[in-house]
Amino acid sequence: MIANRQIAFAARPEGRPAAETFIMREAPMPVPEAGEILCRNLWLSVDPYLRLKMHDRESYTPPLQIGETIPGRSVAEVIEARAHGFSKGDLVAVSGGWQDFAAVPAKAAKLIPLRTPHPTAYLGPLGMTGETAYAGLLQIGKPKPGETLVVSAAAGAVGGLVGQIGKVKGCRVVGIAGSQEKCRFVTEELKFDACVNYRTPDFARALKKACPNGVDIYFDNVGGPVTETVLPLVNTFARMPLCGLISQYDGQQAGDPRALAELMRWILVRRITIRGFIVYDIAPNFPDFEGEMTKWLDEGLVVSREHLSEGFDNIVPAFLGLLGGENTGKSIVRIAEPSSLL
Amino acid sequence: MIANRQIAFAARPEGRPAAETFIMREAPMPVPEAGEILCRNLWLSVDPYLRLKMHDRESYTPPLQIGETIPGRSVAEVIEARAHGFSKGDLVAVSGGWQDFAAVPAKAAKLIPLRTPHPTAYLGPLGMTGETAYAGLLQIGKPKPGETLVVSAAAGAVGGLVGQIGKVKGCRVVGIAGSQEKCRFVTEELKFDACVNYRTPDFARALKKACPNGVDIYFDNVGGPVTETVLPLVNTFARMPLCGLISQYDGQQAGDPRALAELMRWILVRRITIRGFIVYDIAPNFPDFEGEMTKWLDEGLVVSREHLSEGFDNIVPAFLGLLGGENTGKSIVRIAEPSSLL
Repeated sequence: MIANRQIAFAARPEGRPAAETFIMREAPMPVPEAGEILCRNLWLSVDPYLRLKMHDRESYTPPLQIGETIPGRSVAEVIEARAHGFSKGDLVAVSGGWQDFAAVPAKAAKLIPLRTPHPTAYLGPLGMTGETAYAGLLQIGKPKPGETLVVSAAAGAVGGLVGQIGKVKGCRVVGIAGSQEKCRFVTEELKFDACVNYRTPDFARALKKACPNGVDIYFDNVGGPVTETVLPLVNTFARMPLCGLISQYDGQQAGDPRALAELMRWILVRRITIRGFIVYDIAPNFPDFEGEMTKWLDEGLVVSREHLSEGFDNIVPAFLGLLGGENTGKSIVRIAEPSSLL
Repeated sequence: MIANRQIAFAARPEGRPAAETFIMREAPMPVPEAGEILCRNLWLSVDPYLRLKMHDRESYTPPLQIGETIPGRSVAEVIEARAHGFSKGDLVAVSGGWQDFAAVPAKAAKLIPLRTPHPTAYLGPLGMTGETAYAGLLQIGKPKPGETLVVSAAAGAVGGLVGQIGKVKGCRVVGIAGSQEKCRFVTEELKFDACVNYRTPDFARALKKACPNGVDIYFDNVGGPVTETVLPLVNTFARMPLCGLISQYDGQQAGDPRALAELMRWILVRRITIRGFIVYDIAPNFPDFEGEMTKWLDEGLVVSREHLSEGFDNIVPAFLGLLGGENTGKSIVRIAEPSSLL
């Protein structure tokens, strides 16, 4: 009998999660019910928002419960189909979780064309990551040609796509990232106009220099001091899609006690719009997303870097590395090969 | 020769302005140029945003300069017209400033129908105050029937109108004000569904009780701890038009050092929209404002309380009282009678 390895939530972390936050266990192979497909996970997506789910308090999804298998998107192979429209051997994008096998409702599975050269794109630019970048930037950022778009976590999965979409829309695009190496990646591979390293003492001045016409859109993935540094640069009527707050997911650090008043002041005097969103809220407004993104990928207008880890044992290290900012591009863990390649 | 009494900006205040912030002086009667009208101010509007202009730093209007006559809207009588469409004796709403006489461009003057029973309505519900409430609530708040609207500074000029417009639009309307007496005014005269006194220790609990279905729109005039108290009550997809920040105009008090992170967290997890605005930005989107507001006033759906002071010497005290929260309704100072009544 084949066991189903799972990574479950073992203990609520205080501060940064660690190996002890998780436990690996073996469960019986799941049995699909009518309308479900049994999937073998091949590639797992590892995402920052999981950290937010580890707090025992309200978020946009329910808190993780101790003992719960860690959820997440995956590209998987159908090994048994109890639903129309799916066959053994199909590749699908599903919410497969951090485990070898998952039985999931077919209705929630996305069939991936078998000849797709890069099925992992369905975890990146063609998946939730891409939809987050696309819908958030277009609906809330409302980019116009010639405007300046600043993106934090620019070397990350969402940030890198946001900037590239901004370039397609004619913006001057300035990234913020955490190392010189990441900044080089952002300007050389992703073709942002500039990228500034927030870990240097010169950050505020360098950012200002990179934005000679101010900032019209600030797509925020991080919050905290980086956001406070961007604020004085925003132009009247700036838009700030708030997509993530990775800087404060480990716990809300005490900051400048005047920071809230300062933010409110900028919102008022510059008539800024800040809007938090998650992809499910606004993606339905963009039915053309997949077609447009596919075209951009084909034309090379958008490229996607993957930060690929290998093997089940590297899922947790990949997640911890992501929270520590070690990734460049989309964090993905390959835990199995498709049968067709075996 | 008739002198023109003026109140000018004498000294930038540290903290709360005082009598010394201003100086009264006499200037020669202004002489209108072609295209201008010479006005005698009858009623002056006294507004909180003036405090924001007293800081020597960027705001949505240039900082006041020392020696500058304090600006402000007024209802005035035309005493000499050098422009078509205006005649001696006409009543106009203009940016007349804190002085007896002003020569202003006719293009920027609004003619008030001579038989208007309440010309001061053009400083209140039919003026900038009313447009601020109307356009801010409709464009950013987007009220829908059955939603809960919370308004801070509910006994103030803008706040009182916002809540009444919210009632017209079918919302449950909850005010926040600074005394039991103001709260009574808000519920009994303005017909809000509830009003909570933020100066009581029970404030947070009372507000929660007054909003059993949470808060869909928070129209903010004050910022600071009041805003922080509202935040946890807002519903998913709440809208927060940010109209003013009177609690921090005297200087940004140090607050809870985690307050910014907390705000950002709420914006993200509840997918809130916060948008700062000033009336000039959005009023042009609402060409029907005056007609609709006039109808509501005629039907008694909207009432306007004026906090009236008498005489030129009471302009400064009226403004200081406004900043201290002493007003109920729109602060207006009558400095002269129309000639027709003399």
